[in-house]
Order: sequence, then C-alpha cells, then structure tokens
Amino acid sequence: MSQTMQAAVLYGINDLRVESVAAPGAPAPKEAKIQINRVGICGSDVHYWQHGRIGDFVVREPMILGHECSGTVVEVGTDVSHLQPGDRVALEPGVPRGSTPSSNYYLKKGEYNLCPDIFFFATPPDHGSFCQFVNHPAEFCFKLPDNVSLEEGAMIEPLSTGIYAARVAPIISGDTVVVTGAGPIGLMNVLTALAVGAANVIVSDPVAARLEVAREIGATHTVSGSAEELKQLAQDLTEGRGADVGIEAAGHPLALNACIAASRPGATVVLIGMPPNDTAEININDLIVREIKLRPIFRYNNTFPTGVQLLASGKVNVKPLLSKTFTLPQVPEAFEYVVANRDTCVKAVVEIG
Amino acid sequence: MSQTMQAAVLYGINDLRVESVAAPGAPAPKEAKIQINRVGICGSDVHYWQHGRIGDFVVREPMILGHECSGTVVEVGTDVSHLQPGDRVALEPGVPRGSTPSSNYYLKKGEYNLCPDIFFFATPPDHGSFCQFVNHPAEFCFKLPDNVSLEEGAMIEPLSTGIYAARVAPIISGDTVVVTGAGPIGLMNVLTALAVGAANVIVSDPVAARLEVAREIGATHTVSGSAEELKQLAQDLTEGRGADVGIEAAGHPLALNACIAASRPGATVVLIGMPPNDTAEININDLIVREIKLRPIFRYNNTFPTGVQLLASGKVNVKPLLSKTFTLPQVPEAFEYVVANRDTCVKAVVEIG
Amino acid sequence: MSQTMQAAVLYGINDLRVESVAAPGAPAPKEAKIQINRVGICGSDVHYWQHGRIGDFVVREPMILGHECSGTVVEVGTDVSHLQPGDRVALEPGVPRGSTPSSNYYLKKGEYNLCPDIFFFATPPDHGSFCQFVNHPAEFCFKLPDNVSLEEGAMIEPLSTGIYAARVAPIISGDTVVVTGAGPIGLMNVLTALAVGAANVIVSDPVAARLEVAREIGATHTVSGSAEELKQLAQDLTEGRGADVGIEAAGHPLALNACIAASRPGATVVLIGMPPNDTAEININDLIVREIKLRPIFRYNNTFPTGVQLLASGKVNVKPLLSKTFTLPQVPEAFEYVVANRDTCVKAVVEIG
Amino acid sequence: MSQTMQAAVLYGINDLRVESVAAPGAPAPKEAKIQINRVGICGSDVHYWQHGRIGDFVVREPMILGHECSGTVVEVGTDVSHLQPGDRVALEPGVPRGSTPSSNYYLKKGEYNLCPDIFFFATPPDHGSFCQFVNHPAEFCFKLPDNVSLEEGAMIEPLSTGIYAARVAPIISGDTVVVTGAGPIGLMNVLTALAVGAANVIVSDPVAARLEVAREIGATHTVSGSAEELKQLAQDLTEGRGADVGIEAAGHPLALNACIAASRPGATVVLIGMPPNDTAEININDLIVREIKLRPIFRYNNTFPTGVQLLASGKVNVKPLLSKTFTLPQVPEAFEYVVANRDTCVKAVVEIG
Repeated sequence: MSQTMQAAVLYGINDLRVESVAAPGAPAPKEAKIQINRVGICGSDVHYWQHGRIGDFVVREPMILGHECSGTVVEVGTDVSHLQPGDRVALEPGVPRGSTPSSNYYLKKGEYNLCPDIFFFATPPDHGSFCQFVNHPAEFCFKLPDNVSLEEGAMIEPLSTGIYAARVAPIISGDTVVVTGAGPIGLMNVLTALAVGAANVIVSDPVAARLEVAREIGATHTVSGSAEELKQLAQDLTEGRGADVGIEAAGHPLALNACIAASRPGATVVLIGMPPNDTAEININDLIVREIKLRPIFRYNNTFPTGVQLLASGKVNVKPLLSKTFTLPQVPEAFEYVVANRDTCVKAVVEIG
Repeated sequence: MSQTMQAAVLYGINDLRVESVAAPGAPAPKEAKIQINRVGICGSDVHYWQHGRIGDFVVREPMILGHECSGTVVEVGTDVSHLQPGDRVALEPGVPRGSTPSSNYYLKKGEYNLCPDIFFFATPPDHGSFCQFVNHPAEFCFKLPDNVSLEEGAMIEPLSTGIYAARVAPIISGDTVVVTGAGPIGLMNVLTALAVGAANVIVSDPVAARLEVAREIGATHTVSGSAEELKQLAQDLTEGRGADVGIEAAGHPLALNACIAASRPGATVVLIGMPPNDTAEININDLIVREIKLRPIFRYNNTFPTGVQLLASGKVNVKPLLSKTFTLPQVPEAFEYVVANRDTCVKAVVEIG
Repeated sequence: MSQTMQAAVLYGINDLRVESVAAPGAPAPKEAKIQINRVGICGSDVHYWQHGRIGDFVVREPMILGHECSGTVVEVGTDVSHLQPGDRVALEPGVPRGSTPSSNYYLKKGEYNLCPDIFFFATPPDHGSFCQFVNHPAEFCFKLPDNVSLEEGAMIEPLSTGIYAARVAPIISGDTVVVTGAGPIGLMNVLTALAVGAANVIVSDPVAARLEVAREIGATHTVSGSAEELKQLAQDLTEGRGADVGIEAAGHPLALNACIAASRPGATVVLIGMPPNDTAEININDLIVREIKLRPIFRYNNTFPTGVQLLASGKVNVKPLLSKTFTLPQVPEAFEYVVANRDTCVKAVVEIG
Repeated sequence: MSQTMQAAVLYGINDLRVESVAAPGAPAPKEAKIQINRVGICGSDVHYWQHGRIGDFVVREPMILGHECSGTVVEVGTDVSHLQPGDRVALEPGVPRGSTPSSNYYLKKGEYNLCPDIFFFATPPDHGSFCQFVNHPAEFCFKLPDNVSLEEGAMIEPLSTGIYAARVAPIISGDTVVVTGAGPIGLMNVLTALAVGAANVIVSDPVAARLEVAREIGATHTVSGSAEELKQLAQDLTEGRGADVGIEAAGHPLALNACIAASRPGATVVLIGMPPNDTAEININDLIVREIKLRPIFRYNNTFPTGVQLLASGKVNVKPLLSKTFTLPQVPEAFEYVVANRDTCVKAVVEIG
C-alpha cells in the first residue's frame, strides 16, 4: 500500500488546496528521496494560482506548486554514491530528459535549460515541491556545507537567475549595472552583480520600500523616477556613456525601454522579466546605432554549484531577502499574503513540517 | 593656389551635382593622398539623396557622397612607411578621432566603430569619396595584392558587414543560417556565411530576381513566401530546431519577426536592416522562452584585413554582385538607375576617371 | 545461446587476432544495434598494437581495437524514436557515463570529453569497433544523408579533431594558419581550417609525400625545412607578424616550438600531437612577452552534427585522404601495411564484411 | 633655458643616481604635464638595477626608472578637454605609438599591449617616472575620485595585472583559484580574484610572512609546502577536480608545474611570472589529456578605468600591501631595502617631494 504525504495542490484559478497525495516510492537507481524542508514562493507560483497559466504553459490537471527548495536526503538509489541519508541539499528543479535528438543536442552543448523536454518542478504537467517528499535525480541535488542553512539553500534557485545573468552578460569587475525592477529577481541580481565586482549597481523601481531593500543589500544607487532620470544617473557615473550592463527584471515594456536607454553603446541588456502582453515595441534603429545587444535568459544552467559556493564563502548573503516564513498548511494563506504585500514582502518561505 | 577636382556633391533632396571642388593639399604626416578609382553606390547614399537624412544624421551643408571605395596612392605623409605611390588600396571609411574620454574608451577596446566622434565618409558633416582625390589616414588604407582588382577592392566595405556579422554571431562551421533580405547587404552576408563554413544558407526575399542572384552565389535555399514557410524550411533542415544564426538585412519589422521565428532556441539574430519607422514590435516572451539573442551591428571594426584576405584567397568572389559601371559625371544618372532597378541591380559602381 | 561475430582483438604487443567473440544481444532501451560497415585505422590503434599502451591507458585484457566507424542500424531499443533499421550512421565513440559528481559536472557544462568516466571505443578497458556489431547509445549515432557514403561517415571521427580545433582556437575567416605535422590529423586540420575561411594554410612536415597530399587538399603553402624557414614564411604572409593560429599535430617538441615560433603575438597554438616522452621544454618568457596561448585539445565534443553537415554540404571532402581499403580478416595485415607505408598511406579503412 | 628636475636614473648595474635632469617642456596638444606624486617600486625596476636588463630589454643609456605612478595635472595640451590643472590622476605607463601596420593591427583590435612599438615607462630606451614631472598622453591619465588617494592610485598599475588575469582567464563567481607566488603580483591577484567572486583563493609560497599577508587580504587558504600538498588542497575543495583557474606569479618552473598540477581538467592557468632561465619543461601530454590551457599575459590592456572603479567602490583595498614609503632622494636606499626585505616588504612606495 502506497504511503501518503501532504502537498499544496493547485486545482484551478484561486483554488489551491493542501491535501494528502501519494508519497513517492523508493528512488530509482540514480535518484535520491528528499524530505523537503524549505520552499520559497515564486512569482510564477502565484501567477499559476491567479491565472492558471503562464504563456503556453497551462495547468490542465491538479498540480503541486513550488520549485525553490531544499531538504534532507532520506534514501538514495542504488547507483548514487555521492549522497547519503542525512545530507542537506538544494534541489535544481529543471532536469533535461534527453528523449529526442534536439533535447540531446542542447544537453550535450551544456545548454540543458533549452531542452524542449526538460522536467521542471511546478511547470505543467510536472509536479512541484510544496510537499513532504520528492524523488529527484541525485545529480541535481547539491550538498550544502555546514555553514549554509536549508533556508538559504532554498534561495539558490532564485539566485540562479542572477548568477546566470552575470555570467552571460557578462558583468565585468568595475562595471556599472542598471537593474530595472526591484522584485525578488531584481534583488537577486543586485546581489550577484555585486558579487562579481560591479562598482555601481543602480536599481530602478517605482516602489520606495523595494528600493530601500535594494540599498540595504548593497545597491549603490536607486531611482524611483522616470526613464530619463535613470538614464541621466547612469551617464553621470560613466563619463556620459551609460551602464555597461542592463538587467531587465520588471517585465514591462516601459522598464525594458528605460533599461535600454540607460545602457551605453555596446552594452548588453539581459532580458528576464516577461511583459504581461508578451510584446514590446523596441527602437531597432537605436539598438543598431548604439549596438546594444539583447540577451534573454530562460531560467539558467550550471548555476547550483556556483550558488553553493557563493553562499558558503559569504560572497552573497540572501538572508535580508527572507521576509516571512509559513508552514505547509498555511500555503494558501501565504499566497494571499504575498499578493497583499507585494511591495514589502520580498521572499516568503514555506517550512515543510 | 589650391587645385580643384571633380566631385559628386549632394546639395539637398534630389539635388546631386557633379562639380569642381577644392582638391586636398599635401597629406598630413600620417595620411596618404589617394586617387580614387572605384566607388560603389550604397543604399545609404541613395537614402541621403532621396531623404536628405538617415535618422539623426541630417545633411545640412553640401556633402560629397560615397564611401565604398578604392584607389591608388599618389603621395604619402612624412610618417608613412608602409605605403608608397602606386600602391593600390581599399579605404576603410570610418576613422575614430579619439577626441574625448568616451571615444578613447571604445578605441582602446577595439570597438572603434562605437566611438561617438568617428569620422565616416559621407556621413554628415563628413565628406565622402565620390571625387578624384582624398587624404586619408594611412592606417585605414589597405594594400590590395596583385590578384585583387580595384573594383573588387571597393567591395570590401559592403563585404565588411558580412565579415563582422559572421564573426560576432558567430557563425560556426556546419551552421544553418537564415538571411532575410536579398539586397546588397543580404547577399554580402550570404558570401561571408558560406566562407566561414555555413552548410545551409537560406535566403528570404519577396523579389524573385534577387533570389536568383542569391542562388548563383551559393545560397543553398531561397524562399519568396511567408514567414511560416521560411520557418518550416529552417526547421526541416535542422531536426526541427530552426536556424543557428539569423541575419536580418531587410530592414522591416515583418522580416525581423520572420527571422526570429525561423531561428532555433539559443540562436543569435544579427540586426543589420533599419526599419523605416525605427521601431518593431517584438515578442519578448518568445525571445526569453527560446533564449534568442538579438545582436545589432553598427558598421564594423577590424574587417578590412580580413576582406583583403578573403578576396585574395578566392574564399569570397564578389564579382557576380557587380551589376553595372558608371563614370563620375554619370553619378546622378547612376542614382536614378539604381532606384529604377532595385530588383535587379545589386551593386552599381562608379569608375572615377 | 548467444551469437558470435568476428572481431579484431588485441591480445598484447604485436598480437592482434581476428577471431570469434560474443555478439551483442538486444540493444538496451536507449541503444541502437549497429552493423559496422567501415572502420578507419587510427594512429592510436597502431600505437596500442605496437606498445600495448598509450600513456596511462594500458591494455590489460584482450581488447577489440577501432573507433573511427560507421554502419547501419539493425535494431533499436524501446526508447529510440529517431533511428530505424536501415539508417546509415556515423558513431561517436566517446560516451560519458555521468556516474560521479565530477563526471556530471563536465557533462552538464557541455565538456563531456573531460568526463573522467567516459566510455571510449578501444580505450582500455572499453572494446572498440573492429567487429561486426555493436550496441551504441542512439544519441551518439548520427544519421548520414544520402549523399554521404559510409566510408566518408567513418571519417567524421578523425575530422572531429579538426572541427574542434578550428572552433576553440578559434580560426577566423581570413586567418593564416600553420599546421605542424602532415599525418592524418594534421591533414584533417587543413580541411577544417579551409572550411572555416582560413586564407593561408601552411603545412610543415619533413616528408615530401605528405606535403604533396597537403597541397592536393588545398594547403596554400608547404614547408619541409627548418623552423626558421617556417617562421619566415608565416611572417612573410602577415606583414611580419606570424600565423594567427598554430596547430601542432606532429607530436614532437621540436615541432611544437617551431609552431610557437611561427605564430604571431596574441596567437593561439592548439596542442594535439602528444610527444613520445610526454614533455617539452618551452620558452615561457617568449610565450609571455608575445602572449601566445597554448590550447590543448583532448578528443572533441559536439562535433558530429557539424561533421555530417560539412560532408553533406561539400564544404569538406575527405575522399583524397582515403588511401587503401582492407577487409576484417585482413586487419593484422592492414596494420603492418600502415606501419610500412607511414609516409604515403594517409588513412587505411577496413570494410567489415 | 630649459628647467631641471630631480630624477632617479639608472646608469648601470648597481648604479642608480638621483640627479638633476632636464624637465619636460610644455605638453604637446594631446598631452598633460603631470607632477608625479607617488611611484611604487616594482620587481622589474629592481631587476634592471641588479642585472641591467630583462630578457631582450637592455639598458644601454642612462634611464629613469619607475612606472607605477600617480600625480597631479599641472598643465594640459591644447586638445585636452577632460583634464585640468589640479586633477589627481593615475598614469597608465604603456602607450602604443601606432607607427607601423602591425602596431596599428593590435591597436585597432584593442590589444594595444601587444603593439611592437609601445612606449612603456622604464623599459629601455623609454624613461620612467621616478622624477618630478612627465608629459603623458592625456588619454592615458585617469582621474582619481576624491575617495581614492594618490598612494592608492599608484597601485592601479600593479593591480592591473590582476584585473587583466581575472578578465582573460576568466575567473567566474564561485571559482576556486590557485595563486602560486605571494609576491606583490601574486597578492594583487588575490585581491582581484576575490573582487570578481572567487569563493576559494589558495595561495602557495615558501615564505610564511608572505602567506600571512595573503591571509590578511582575504586568501581563504595558504600552502607553504609541496606541490602535492597544494594539489591535494585544491582537489579537497572541489570534489576532487582541482582549481578552476591557476595563476602563476612565482616565475619558477617548479611553481608553474605545481600550478598546473593543482588545476582541474579544462582549467586555465594564467602565466605571469617569468622563469629566470626563460624555459620550463612542461608535461604536454598531461596538458592535453586534461585540456589545461596556458594563458600568458603580457602587462594588460583596458584595466585602468576598472582599477579606478574597484578602488573607489571599495571592492579592492590595496592599503594593506603598502609596506613603506621613501622620498625621491632615498630611492637608491629604497632599492637596497626592498632587496634586503623581500619576504616582508610587499610594496615600497616613493613619495616624490
């Protein structure tokens, strides 16, 4: 008889239930069974809850939410040698399946985030990790050293966006960086930009409370005003050129165009935020004359080992971003809270009992 | 008393005159005096003639047009040792002045095409080379070997766009490349894509005559139809993924979106063509989910030595693109011809007497 | 009762036997069973035969040799959908196992050739492909288009070294490239350097017959003489600077130092050839003052799709390198032949009956 | 009548004199006249003093030493607009002349440190900056913000080696870095590795006092013992793989081989230290099998703006490396001191009166 566990399952728009579901059985040879400990609430979790979909990803069957997680190994498959019960781990939620030539094409090149058949926690139809146990491929479970807590470990997932953005832009030491949008992803990018040596990190957001957090974690400048003000500030810091790297994390065409305008000729603007209506009108001729590159990122790859190192070495401190903790039964309430406190709650975390 | 020479001078919209102007005096210490031999007519020359401006570059004073040129050294400045009278050279039209910290910033990094104070033939207020003589910095004059004609040498300038696009994309050997737009720039990109080992080069254009030229110079596939057809073809050649590199040389939002749609996840789309109304509406979320990078290029840098090598080694043959030759007095007529024969005249060249 | 097949098995130094061995059973779910058709004889096969080892790789048990191979699919595992019986394929011989964290580390980054636990045909203790059938992971079997023969398909493996070298150096269009050593690997590098647009390819080797082949396949210059002569030629072609890229494929310290000397400041020298006594004395200060990078390559990654495209598009023609064909029973004789005709036999191929 | 100034002039081995020399006249149009304030004593200065040469650079005429310097603008040339008298600046000592095609070749590519005709302070026959005034190209004078002292500004030159090494390796956030040699250059590399997010920085040196400084400035691990011990430590920190980046700053073949041995497959080893007898015996086959790249660096390019930013933002603190200050008349004594206290004196600085 299969065992059960508690999980937060999304049934439809505004219909999130904490209930008993079948617990996973024994892990497959290359898997580890993880007792989930902490799961952060991501904007995408909330979006599925509010809208039942994100773009082409539609929730058609009840789906467990959650993908920013850490936990403790309770059992390992027969082929797993580098983990053992008791190990504390962060879980990378995206696992390529390599089931088609194109999937293998990306997998072999190290761009596994682009595999068309990738498994990803809480992306329909794949279940997430707001639950007590998951079986997960052992090579996507990353051991946490003693000085990194499980709460911090759960933050490696959102931090990964920043690690990846800084790597692919790339941000070079001494750079001036503009981040548009001071939500959780924008703030994670502030941390990683600073960690790789950015000298100036300018954060733009209309909400004063968020800018205050940005300054607390090290942003050197904040702007709540117009695109023109942002551009002026970036130019003032760079002999008139503009930012070396722009990071668009607001998900709005106005922010995107402000980010481009504040960037210098030859800069790279990393696209992370997804506009609500998909599109944005872009001045192509301005991009050309100033040779500004747009570098979209879809999730990340090869960031978890880096995330572990950045936390363990103290290069990055995510603790100031952890706003509030809930329990598993409180998940629906936590979602309500997050929506009601968008301006002040950076990251809510669920402690799975 | 200063000497005179003949030149094709743009006075205003549709007012292009061949007349006597002051000839340059002795070259400065680091300059060479060049007797111009061949000058190609570029779309930008025609655009200034028709509209009096390109974006923010406005012709306010009479300006000599022309920037795709070659000629023969007739005199060298006192500091010039690598050139001597009689040498046949191609002229790189853009010369950074390095007059401000930001100009020096780009110059020192090797991105001199981004210098805000760059001199560029026939970009207001700088005069161009539809004339008999110019003094030009010797380090921007590139000697042509015996097996490269002056007519071919004048084509290194438009070819440079292709050399630069292939380098920065980069196009890797075996790649499938989509080129939208089979005008002169699109066709130059076909040549360079093939030269660096592209296995499939798909060219899209509504004009059948241009596609015929594309096939003649080696394009492996051509499409005159819809964006959907282009996408399908690119996917058919790549196990369903799409093109590895897209090159947008049509300058129209529809072409840009077709180029993006035909490109695979992780691809780079090089932006060369400038939309007539500056902007294009782009599906940002599609860019993000498929991680498609937009890489605009503004002119080029460090391409002339490569261009000389590609022509001398026979890796690139520009001769099939040379449609018709005119003389200097015929320049106004040549412009009329180019406009009247857009679909069949790839590159008209002026032979300066 | 398991079936048998014929195979060429190395028992020890100079002890290579063609004999019956157990044939593979049904392919595993992700495998394809391949009837081997053509196998090239590589220098490493001969080296194992003559010395029983290559560096730390020691033949301790009887081992089937051969790793440059192609064949026809005869059966596919239950999870394989992109191949079917009758498909003609080239086999990539190296398959990472991903059995340890470090192996997964390289695998996820796309550098799977560095996985410490990689399986590789005919690298002890892994058997090779001088036999009638192998079961091979389907994602490492690459379908050949109709216009690529199985004989050419078997050459994708040695060609891969050139594809990888040109990619990582990288060779840029218009470059001047020096290749030291005109054995099979050096010649493959000539082909790929030309395919990516090298304008000058200088090949150095003491054996005149090999240089003749180099010229036949497109090398623009050949040198049989001293390091000084090579350096002088490279400088003569580059305004005195030296080669943009050096490729050391001779496996001798003198060749390596000649390759470095012929390269320009800022060049990359790709290290492929392995010196017989492991070490070479290098002038470190010369490397530093001229900033010459040494870029060793170990096998290759992600080259087979490129190889298929280069052959199918005609960008590369390996046929002139195919010197002589043998049958499976003739394998020992073929090895004798290869050793006796090192100077004239570029690539001997075995046709498995 | 031309004015005089005091300068420290090297006449020959062990013959360094502080004496009156002609002071520079008015700056050329693109120059600034700088009153030198601080000059660090570099190992190369001491080497010229002790040996009269470094490799092929031989002191044949009396030469002013010194190249790590900062000062105050006292006059600017007619074309200089971004500096004015009173500005405090750091001086980049290497200025490409662009006098030949090859020099321009590197200059245009942004690799101006490779220009064969580069001017460089205190590299024969170019005079250095142990003197009261120099005229220097204004674009190689970098303004210091108020929070950066002239003493720190003089350290941008040696710091540049670290900035450049970290950029070209590149060091990625979370990396484990091994630095062999804890002299001034090794220690500067510790600072820059940490600034770009290295999680572990292991420093190896036989001298305990130097390792103590390394720890003070943030090195996470130090090793005074054998190459084997260094390798073991690097592997222990990386799941057995070894360091992601090695930086060889000791200038000895043993250190170089230890650095290679401690690096992981796929790593880059940056070569900075110059072995006393030029050469080192390297295991080429080990480089190949583990694909370890050797990346020599010769000085640096485009690092001064970064250096200013790193100091101004507090990302790098060079103050702990400033060991002792001397006056201009004390320069000979300072050289004696530096040699006598190699193990404890990291950086001696001369304050020009």
